[in-house]
Amino acid sequence: MICNFDQLLSHAQSLGTRIVAIAGAQDEAALSALLEARKMGLAEGKLFGNRSAIIRILESLEVEPEAFEIRDFPDEVGATQAAVECVRRGEADILLKGKTQTAVLLKAVLDPEHGLRTPRLLSDAFVFEDPHRSENKLVMITDGGVNIAPDLQQKIQIVQNAVDLAHLLGNSNPKVALLSAVETVSPSIPSTVDAAIIAKMNQRGQIKGCTIDGPLALDNAICKEAAQIKGIDSPVAGEAEILVCPNIESANLLAKSTTFWAGFRLGHLIMGASAPILIPSRVDTPDAKLLSVAFGVIVSHRKM
Amino acid sequence: MICNFDQLLSHAQSLGTRIVAIAGAQDEAALSALLEARKMGLAEGKLFGNRSAIIRILESLEVEPEAFEIRDFPDEVGATQAAVECVRRGEADILLKGKTQTAVLLKAVLDPEHGLRTPRLLSDAFVFEDPHRSENKLVMITDGGVNIAPDLQQKIQIVQNAVDLAHLLGNSNPKVALLSAVETVSPSIPSTVDAAIIAKMNQRGQIKGCTIDGPLALDNAICKEAAQIKGIDSPVAGEAEILVCPNIESANLLAKSTTFWAGFRLGHLIMGASAPILIPSRVDTPDAKLLSVAFGVIVSHRKM
Repeated sequence: MICNFDQLLSHAQSLGTRIVAIAGAQDEAALSALLEARKMGLAEGKLFGNRSAIIRILESLEVEPEAFEIRDFPDEVGATQAAVECVRRGEADILLKGKTQTAVLLKAVLDPEHGLRTPRLLSDAFVFEDPHRSENKLVMITDGGVNIAPDLQQKIQIVQNAVDLAHLLGNSNPKVALLSAVETVSPSIPSTVDAAIIAKMNQRGQIKGCTIDGPLALDNAICKEAAQIKGIDSPVAGEAEILVCPNIESANLLAKSTTFWAGFRLGHLIMGASAPILIPSRVDTPDAKLLSVAFGVIVSHRKM
Repeated sequence: MICNFDQLLSHAQSLGTRIVAIAGAQDEAALSALLEARKMGLAEGKLFGNRSAIIRILESLEVEPEAFEIRDFPDEVGATQAAVECVRRGEADILLKGKTQTAVLLKAVLDPEHGLRTPRLLSDAFVFEDPHRSENKLVMITDGGVNIAPDLQQKIQIVQNAVDLAHLLGNSNPKVALLSAVETVSPSIPSTVDAAIIAKMNQRGQIKGCTIDGPLALDNAICKEAAQIKGIDSPVAGEAEILVCPNIESANLLAKSTTFWAGFRLGHLIMGASAPILIPSRVDTPDAKLLSVAFGVIVSHRKM
């Protein structure tokens, strides 16, 4: 089982080099993510976009453009569709967003004929390393990137995508906390009601491969002492490994707090398509970009 | 201007002792909050609730029960109404929740005749100290405690309550960030639309005494470098002092992340009534309880 980011990187390296297709590759954040991963032997790239702009950025990053297959496209949509198609045909393993709008990328990915669609919902998984944890230090937060206000069915699929990722990291029965502002079920707070329903579905064997509890507040999900003080009897409380937030704002704010306040390392990717999708942020550190590609490498070995 | 918690405590001490009324005082979290504050000369207490249970807890905390005015009530509702009435008559300055349900407390507070109602909405303000900031280290997060899914009008009142608190701390023009998952206005994410509207109202002078911007994501609200990388031109970005979250879950999770992941100190209280209301958590540290009473002392000097 992969319990920290050093283990993640060694494991990804042991799997051999994978091919990353960049949609709109004239983008420094995207190219630098690829270059970080290339230095570590994790990935090579196929670049789709404005050739002259791509070459200019590669040169500014002191990399020989000849090292990459570059396919020239004048427009964002064409470059994106071609990158997606390349992954769909198995000529690349990981899709990486460059200078293209997320909406354009997701539209191409979700195209029933030419995309990377599966029966699953797409959802974002943000993973951070909590140095204070003793065993498994990798904790996921979802979904802070794709689904704005998921309904019950969508939340279940978000859980399943995160559980899939945990399984791929060797965690065969991750502990899932469905977060809200409180740990009691309150009909006036819909997120607590959804949490209670999903937890019961897990208990009845309708959602497998994980142990789910909720509603939980952050304190009692991640801190054993807090759970004890509140008298919460739960197999998840205090040691949750997947934190499922009720909406995009809570997941996104919580995830960013781990980076900007707590100073934890991170990686992130989109699950649920037939190949992993990476959306590097301009604000991501080189380390975060590298770790995100490492997640992509590991996930790409079991296409969904 | 009060820029950190040490200054907050000295200022509260300089204002002299205030009277705290505890509703349902047979509660260790509440009594220990009072006792922390009493040690520092901030507060004395009037205790409403089950007398014998109160005395038992005081004795277990090694305090002489004779030091307090105790009023015996067999039931939660009676004790709560009496504590609220005591504050309403000016015989106490701060209302502190003990063993009574929050719903019962708020109902008593909002009673038009016997409560502490004002034209304002009640909202929770959570304040933490960010040791990495250079000048004003006190940052607020709101509303993680009262309003579940505030609409536009309610968000405006939540902003005003937080701005009031900033003014009472001597910050005459706080920087307010309306947070969402992204910093662009997207009709599919209602929180970004509300943020844009409220920011414009501030620019037009409809909300005064502060500088508001939004939507902002957490990174560009609190980190200047992140704001620069994303090219955000804003008087708030990178140095927000009040973080307004779009719903109770996002505010509550974000606030708890500062405590449980980043390890920051905190205080919290409810604004918008005619006196400050404190709701100590069993999970709050003694320091957090003391700081919350210190906020209560300062706010109680300008009843709203």
